[in-house]
Amino acid sequence: MKTTLFALPGNEELARLLAERLGAELGEAALRHFPDGESYVRILSDVKGKKVVLACTLDRPDAKLLPLYFLSKVAKSMGAACTCLVAPYLAYMRQDKVFKEGEGITSEYFARLISGFADSLITVDPHLHRISNLDAIYDIPTEVVRAASHISHWIKENIQSPLLVGPDSESEQWVSEVAKNANAPFIVLEKIRRGDRNVEVSIPQVEAYQNHTPVLVDDIISTARTMIETVGHLRQAKMRPPVCIGVHAVFSGNAYQNLLGAGTSRVVTCNTIPHESNAIDVSDLYIEFIEKFEKMAFRKT
Amino acid sequence: MKTTLFALPGNEELARLLAERLGAELGEAALRHFPDGESYVRILSDVKGKKVVLACTLDRPDAKLLPLYFLSKVAKSMGAACTCLVAPYLAYMRQDKVFKEGEGITSEYFARLISGFADSLITVDPHLHRISNLDAIYDIPTEVVRAASHISHWIKENIQSPLLVGPDSESEQWVSEVAKNANAPFIVLEKIRRGDRNVEVSIPQVEAYQNHTPVLVDDIISTARTMIETVGHLRQAKMRPPVCIGVHAVFSGNAYQNLLGAGTSRVVTCNTIPHESNAIDVSDLYIEFIEKFEKMAFRKT
Repeated sequence: MKTTLFALPGNEELARLLAERLGAELGEAALRHFPDGESYVRILSDVKGKKVVLACTLDRPDAKLLPLYFLSKVAKSMGAACTCLVAPYLAYMRQDKVFKEGEGITSEYFARLISGFADSLITVDPHLHRISNLDAIYDIPTEVVRAASHISHWIKENIQSPLLVGPDSESEQWVSEVAKNANAPFIVLEKIRRGDRNVEVSIPQVEAYQNHTPVLVDDIISTARTMIETVGHLRQAKMRPPVCIGVHAVFSGNAYQNLLGAGTSRVVTCNTIPHESNAIDVSDLYIEFIEKFEKMAFRKT
Repeated sequence: MKTTLFALPGNEELARLLAERLGAELGEAALRHFPDGESYVRILSDVKGKKVVLACTLDRPDAKLLPLYFLSKVAKSMGAACTCLVAPYLAYMRQDKVFKEGEGITSEYFARLISGFADSLITVDPHLHRISNLDAIYDIPTEVVRAASHISHWIKENIQSPLLVGPDSESEQWVSEVAKNANAPFIVLEKIRRGDRNVEVSIPQVEAYQNHTPVLVDDIISTARTMIETVGHLRQAKMRPPVCIGVHAVFSGNAYQNLLGAGTSRVVTCNTIPHESNAIDVSDLYIEFIEKFEKMAFRKT
């Protein structure tokens, strides 16, 4: 089955990379807003009988949903065999339970909407906290791509004597995995509570690592508050200026500028959300899954 | 069954008017955005077993859809008997057929989304062009409120010697109805084609109406282009500065300023989209339908 890729606005580079790697064609579509703010969608390529891949990362999701939904519906109405959504960043993964009475489980509600128009979903390191996998909330086949190996590889290639640093015990599993694949040591900061408002942060074996470059790794950098705090602790301990790596460059408000200004030597992210800090290309990881969904779709027809 | 009304941001006045008229309570909800742009929704009132009315007019619809959907889902999850969407302006009514290959029927796609989470819908004069009623695209009970009688009443009360003016033959039916109920005469502009690029507009019986105040009426004022053109024709014919009335104050870009500056004496709209030009309150027209849906919901339980 032939594959055609469409980029939602801002995802042109991702669609181009995937088309190149798949040897597939880039579809042409017109997407714009009417003067009254409504979305207009038109597909200009032939998609009949083809697998349609929609490239649309889902940070700032609210205004993106209708154009994406319309594009998927139009493709189907033109005879597309299936639509596969490649959303490197997946939205609404935070609210996965009712924390306070009167709240909703928006991760489920959002999943139901997406499952209502896309036939499959590929995403990178979604923020899975209390649910173990996406199948718990998505009714369509989903594949989760892990960026850890590419981050390890980037660290090995670009940083001399790296020391992976986890900001708290929650991050240990993730940080230890990246460290192992980068052949680098890692430490996890320890919080020592000395009263209600007095929390001291201790850096284990700090003397041993004065000549290492600390590397902070997190899945999402949004407000960057945790990272900026951690950078502060490392500075107090007179360690070298750290490199900060995030999978997803969400960066709300001035978070990026604040993180750069906090004493980091560099801020690096994967290309799951287009941003000037993108330095680690993970798009090759989507290919096998796109091809797999293609085969699944093929079996159905 | 008790009724609780919730206002989506910007619809507080509408919800307040309806609560007052219905003798129903205004529900309390927290709606905000996280720093990363995702929506947060929390209902702070008890809605169990109640009919929930969501007040949310749907101009500039794309960013409104998810908060509205979430609020409806949360209400249901808390045991609300049903949700009734009061959307005085209904979006995506323009694209009701495939005009060019590759386009979609977004009026249907949008209707399917709304029908997926609201149990009923009340709206005012939707732009029904090629489909005769909303039941053709909405799977839920819908009621269409007509603003014409309120517009007629406003004209009778506020304008001496009004002359209703339709910009073209398409508007005749609507304009004649408003004129009849306002006990006012009406004319419809005639376009006389004198070649490919030469269209002359003639104003019938223009001499007879020099002492009347022309009143232009349209359902939606978006770019205001047609209205501004018509105002120009009336000026050329040395008629008095007209009053422009629209049901829906969409006003894209600088349309409102442009219309005011085109030589109108006043621009007036119904309160279906909050705007400084709102002068005609049509919210009393929703009441019987809200009560009707209440009874329908009651029969079901």
